[in-house]
Amino acid sequence: MKKRSLPLSRVYRLLEPGPVVMVTTAKKGRANIMTMSWHTMMEFEPPLVGCVISNRNHSFASLKATKECVINIPTVKLAEQAVACGNTSGRSVDKFKAFGLTAVPAARVAAPLIDECYANLECRVADTRLVAKYNFFILEVLKAWIDPSQKNPRTIHHCGRGVFMVAGKTIALPSKMK
Amino acid sequence: MKKRSLPLSRVYRLLEPGPVVMVTTAKKGRANIMTMSWHTMMEFEPPLVGCVISNRNHSFASLKATKECVINIPTVKLAEQAVACGNTSGRSVDKFKAFGLTAVPAARVAAPLIDECYANLECRVADTRLVAKYNFFILEVLKAWIDPSQKNPRTIHHCGRGVFMVAGKTIALPSKMK
Repeated sequence: MKKRSLPLSRVYRLLEPGPVVMVTTAKKGRANIMTMSWHTMMEFEPPLVGCVISNRNHSFASLKATKECVINIPTVKLAEQAVACGNTSGRSVDKFKAFGLTAVPAARVAAPLIDECYANLECRVADTRLVAKYNFFILEVLKAWIDPSQKNPRTIHHCGRGVFMVAGKTIALPSKMK
Repeated sequence: MKKRSLPLSRVYRLLEPGPVVMVTTAKKGRANIMTMSWHTMMEFEPPLVGCVISNRNHSFASLKATKECVINIPTVKLAEQAVACGNTSGRSVDKFKAFGLTAVPAARVAAPLIDECYANLECRVADTRLVAKYNFFILEVLKAWIDPSQKNPRTIHHCGRGVFMVAGKTIALPSKMK
């Protein structure tokens, strides 16, 4: 075997996550945005999304208190804003204002949609059993929005240390998977 | 807002998951492979990976009984074999033999590595609290292997219904994220 051992500290860079998303929350009328990469689908319908939101994030307390958020999915055109939201804290910055993003009222939750994102998923917290140990929330998607004018949205995927993979071409293979 | 509502049944196609991986298990000397797309990193180090493995899969029982598996990461060159492993059941097929894949002994677990995959993560089950309700396992990576000869490995990402996104170019943006 021609393989070498890889330090465990670098494993996360292999399991390059799903698309970078921007999570909005709102508490006492004040909205915030955080950037998130560690999430997975857990059920098709109703859609359940599991995600890790560190308790070091300003959004953690809002999500825990309000049990609501919106997962906003940016394309590569918003990459700089997405990273900027990850590099700053809602404690001191109004990220909508600072990064020129538009808050639009959601239908089912108090947290706003980010209009510039090509898709938005309004969520409520469905299970908090793993929050204390892993900061892992299970969210149920209540309402989903998509911008039909954005064809072939090219999402970005964090590979660690500021390197992002941009979604490439698609291929089709006959699959029994849903 | 120019967005339209999206049926909740299609949400999973938006949150296009991390790389398609091939999970190997071994029970009573018999190894099996399953294809998996729903997983997320949960901790950097020791690396924790959360993943959904349906109880309809033959591998579910092996993983539950042995508490060990290997996450093997294929590139686009193995896309057909990865999909073929997802389209067949270990109940009736020896997938290593059927799809020309090479089993290599692992260092820390009984399940084999798939030699053709560019990286392999030897795992043990660390938490089963969410298995009964969500089929969600938390795995700890004990040992990781990488093939240094495969430069720019292009992973595949399932977008639903047999459509796979192939990892595209990478961009670098100054990020405080690890």
